[in-house]
Parts: sequence; C-alpha cells; structure tokens
Amino acid sequence: MENTCWTIQDRPIGREVRESDFALETRDVRDLNEGEILLKARMFGFDPTQKSWMSNMAGYAAPTEIGDIMPGRAIAEVVESRSPDFLPGDRVRGHFGWQMHPIVRAAQVEKKISPNVSDENALSILGSSGRTAYFGLVHVGMPKPGDVLLVSGAAGAIGSIVGQLGKIAGCRVIGIAGTQDKCRWIVDELGFDGAINYKADDVSAKLDELCPEGIDVFFDNVGGPILDLALARISYGARVVICGGISNYEKDMTKPEDLPGGPRNYLRLTIQNATMKGYLVHYFSDYNAVADARLERWVGEGRLVHRQDIQNGFENIPVAFQRIFKGLNIGKQLLRV
Amino acid sequence: MENTCWTIQDRPIGREVRESDFALETRDVRDLNEGEILLKARMFGFDPTQKSWMSNMAGYAAPTEIGDIMPGRAIAEVVESRSPDFLPGDRVRGHFGWQMHPIVRAAQVEKKISPNVSDENALSILGSSGRTAYFGLVHVGMPKPGDVLLVSGAAGAIGSIVGQLGKIAGCRVIGIAGTQDKCRWIVDELGFDGAINYKADDVSAKLDELCPEGIDVFFDNVGGPILDLALARISYGARVVICGGISNYEKDMTKPEDLPGGPRNYLRLTIQNATMKGYLVHYFSDYNAVADARLERWVGEGRLVHRQDIQNGFENIPVAFQRIFKGLNIGKQLLRV
Repeated sequence: MENTCWTIQDRPIGREVRESDFALETRDVRDLNEGEILLKARMFGFDPTQKSWMSNMAGYAAPTEIGDIMPGRAIAEVVESRSPDFLPGDRVRGHFGWQMHPIVRAAQVEKKISPNVSDENALSILGSSGRTAYFGLVHVGMPKPGDVLLVSGAAGAIGSIVGQLGKIAGCRVIGIAGTQDKCRWIVDELGFDGAINYKADDVSAKLDELCPEGIDVFFDNVGGPILDLALARISYGARVVICGGISNYEKDMTKPEDLPGGPRNYLRLTIQNATMKGYLVHYFSDYNAVADARLERWVGEGRLVHRQDIQNGFENIPVAFQRIFKGLNIGKQLLRV
Repeated sequence: MENTCWTIQDRPIGREVRESDFALETRDVRDLNEGEILLKARMFGFDPTQKSWMSNMAGYAAPTEIGDIMPGRAIAEVVESRSPDFLPGDRVRGHFGWQMHPIVRAAQVEKKISPNVSDENALSILGSSGRTAYFGLVHVGMPKPGDVLLVSGAAGAIGSIVGQLGKIAGCRVIGIAGTQDKCRWIVDELGFDGAINYKADDVSAKLDELCPEGIDVFFDNVGGPILDLALARISYGARVVICGGISNYEKDMTKPEDLPGGPRNYLRLTIQNATMKGYLVHYFSDYNAVADARLERWVGEGRLVHRQDIQNGFENIPVAFQRIFKGLNIGKQLLRV
C-alpha cells in the first residue's frame, strides 16, 4: 500500500507561500505496531499559523525539517486498527499532516467524532476554529453585556464566530474585513452591528463613528496598523485579545530586530488600565467538552452561522492553503480529498 | 502677599525638556473662600510623566495651557485655613503645582501626613512612588514565590522599590540600569539577585545568562528595545506590567503614526499565554491605606531601602526636573524649597 503526501521543500521566510515550497511524494505504508491505527484522510483544514510551522517560527509547534510531511489538521477514517479503542470506519480528528494514509498512535487521536457532526463542521465551527473563538472571546476577552466588541479578520474562520458569540453575550459588535461582500455578509447574515472595509473605508473615521464611546474588547486576528487604531480607542479596563497576527507569521520572533514595528500605541494600556492578552487554543483543553457542547447547541439553534470554503482534491492542497494568505476564502478554508 | 510660581512657556513635543520651557512668575495671593486653605510649599517631587502633562499627551491628566502653572506633586504646610479640617502648621500632600503659595480646596487635599513620615518619604517610598511600585507589582504583576522578576529602570524611584518588593514576595529579581554604580547599588544594597548595565552589557546575552528559565514578571518602566528583548524570553503565563515608557512621553498617543515602533515581539504573548497590562496608581486608591501601612512597616523594618536625590531652592525646579531625563538621579528626584 502507498501513502501519498506533501512534503516541505522550502521555508517561506519573509515572503508569500509558493506551490514550489511543497512536493508531492509517494511512500510505502509500513506494518502497524501494537497501539497504532492506519488512517485514510477525508478532509483537511487550513490555518494561517501553519505558515509559521513551515519555518519553525512559532516556538510552540514541533520543529519541521525540509523533506518532512507538512503538518496540518485533518479528519480521517480508520482503515486498520491495532488498538482496542478504534474500529475500521471510525472517524477521527487530529494533527495528521498532509498525507493520505497516516499511521498514528491511538492515544494521540481525539475520540471518535459524533455522527451528528459533519467533516466540515468538525474542522471548523465545531473544531479548532470554534474553540479558538470561544476560548479567546469568553475566557480571555471576558465580554460583559453592553460591551462594544471590535473584531478584525471578521469574515474569517475565527472572527466570524467571535462576532456571533459577542452577540450571544449581549455586546454591540463591529467587524473589520477586506471586501464589501464580506462586510455585507457579517452584518446581514451574521448579525454584526456594523462593519468597516479596511481597504475602502477611512478606518479611523469609521471607528470614531461606530465606536463613539470606545472599544471594550478588541479581538485581533491581524495586527499592524489596525491594532494601533484600536488601541487609540480602548475604553477604561479594556481587554485586547491577541489571537493572531497573520502579517507576522513569516517572521522569526527570536530576532525582534527583524520583526515589523509592533503596536506603537501600547502605552494606551497604562492610561486605560487595560490588558493585552495572548493565548493558544490548547491552553484551555480542560474545557473542550463545555465549549463543544455550547457551540453545538448554538449551531443547532441557528444562532451561529458559518461558511466554509471547500476545495477539492488532495493534489490541490498547496493552492487551497495559499487562498488564506490571498484573502480569497470567506469562512474556513477546507479541502475534501 | 505674593505667590512665586513656574509657568509653562513651551511644550516639549518631540524633544528634550529645556529650562526655557518654564518662566518664573509672581502673582498676587487672593483672599480665601470658605472651605479653602492657603499653603506654603516645602518640597517637590518629580516624575517623568510630568513631561506628558506639559504637552497634553497623557489623556488622563487635566489639560494644560501655555502660561498655566506647571502641575506637580508637593508637600506643603497650611498657612491659613478656612476649613475646619486643617489648622495652620498641618502638613499636606497633593497636586499643588510648581508654586510657593497655592490656594486649594480642603476637600481636594490628602489627609494630614503622619508626623513619623518625613517630607522626602511622603513624596517617594511612602507616597506615589511606593504606591505605584506596590500596586503595579502586587495587584498587576501578581508575583508568586519562585518567580523570576525582571525590572527595567531598576535604580529609579519606582524600579528600586519594585525589586525589593519582589524579594519580599519570594522572587528572584534581576534589574536593568544604566551605570555600573546603579547596578552595584541594586545588588549590594537593595538585594537584587543580578543586574544588567544596558549601556555597557550585551543585554540579550546577559538576560540569557541571568534568566535561563525565562521571565515570569517583567516590570517595565522604559519600553523600547528592552521590552522586546524581555518579551522574547517571557515564560508561560507571564505578566508584563507596563508602568511607563519614558522614551514615549513626548509623543501624541492619539496619532499612532507619529509614535516610535512599539513592541515588535507582542505576538510572544500569544505563544506564551501571557498578559501585558497597564495601570495608573490612582486606579487602586481604594487600597491606599493597606499599601501605605505595609510600605511603612517594611521601611521601618529596614526591608525597603530607598535613596532620594534632593536638590535645593525653588528657583532650581526646572534644572532638577531635567535630571530625570538625563539619568542623573539615583532614586527619587526631589527638591527642598
């Protein structure tokens, strides 16, 4: 049996991701050891932070070597099992990498996915995107009813959920996105109270207009100038949640001198008794069951709407991955095998 | 009766403070209204943040106009009182500005200072510097025994107290200062566990040597490149306390584009589940009595050592104020009338 996989050929440091950073290879599938399972990939999910994994810039992720299989999240089904916990046909979710037939230790795989949850939801709103949004907004941002919540990357996989969770929490929610279509979607379909098109609008003037009493929670997926404009308007006791900074994922954080300028306006934290807090979703894994149950209920009730951008074909993985950085996706970028 | 005072003549925006930014003037002292007291200044205390008040850059402070009396903290004694709460001879503390004979409303003055507390201590370790250090480290930084605490501006009025409070809290304390004398003082006399001379040492290498397991609490008085080097080394769950950023006090925070680069390394907060938090001392005023009592006890027990740099003569106020920005003071900059 053969395993088709995408390997890392080059590191995208200081530049965009290219198709030539990856190579399609075929490897033999070895026999299973006790406690292992052989999988067949069904669907892949893509996150901006994977770019930093290619260059070993993230620190928290396992280091990669040139020639390694590209790391990434997927849904797969069990083909063969030498573990009492899994039977052929079971669906599983995990960091399996970009390969069709991974062999993994059963202990490292998340428990079987409920049959009510589709592959696409298991990789997005009821998977890491939903949890990242839930923990970031609820546990880190700590929204209070009446708060003004500003979300950047508001039409993205995480931002779109954060805004809707903000509405559930009783906030007034303003989103920042990069096209009129995205702005219309978050207001008309997701129920945001306002939207700013950062490519077309005067962001500063729009923030003054839409957040005249300041920003209580800023959920930032982007960084850069928008973070500074938001800091200039934080209210007393505000929480700035740093979920990501897509523009920085190509940079080496151990060399500050090589990084682009950070938030010039960080001393606003002092004047406003405010907090800037970072997090990674796995820090809250003790609460996964609570988050999953709530997200599933709100999706079932139609209170959380989600959009997925599903591409097709294992051979198209690098192209699908590039869509995130080009801003082509609306909602979570996925790929069905 | 005449009141001698220093008025603001020019705003130090984008440049150092100059003597010519101030003018010595004489004004008539008017009669007291009911509820007012007439004071005679005894001692003045200086803080870097006063520079931002001259230019209306701080946001939280009352705006100043050219020609206004320069705002500032002082100890004074009551000369005449039309309030039942004060008698001539009582010592009081407050934001009286740079003037010899202020008239203030009794309700706006802090209660009489205990006779055990000297003027110099009332303006430093048992005044705003002590409270700023206590609230910033204890309430914001939340040190745990065993934590590694890094302090910038460690020989300054606030940093020197923060480091000693860190020792009381069971931390290993490393300080960053700008001369060998200051470094020796904080280690030999204040009990810091290590010191880095940022003008002479390779700060990055020294941090690696002195904080090999990372930094749990960074108390920052300075900002700039040192903040980035510290962020590069924060441990999981670290707290970065933004007390000040002396290099930014001449800048207009409502215009981020004019500010120097912020902390490039802020995405380290995400990876390390860490918090950056600002505060101003008056946010914690409900706890002043607790902080004052503890600081007074530790000073009495000799566990908090403090140094004051006392200049003399009301006419020398602008020169004394400039000493802070030139790094000439060791410990709190004061001036006795």
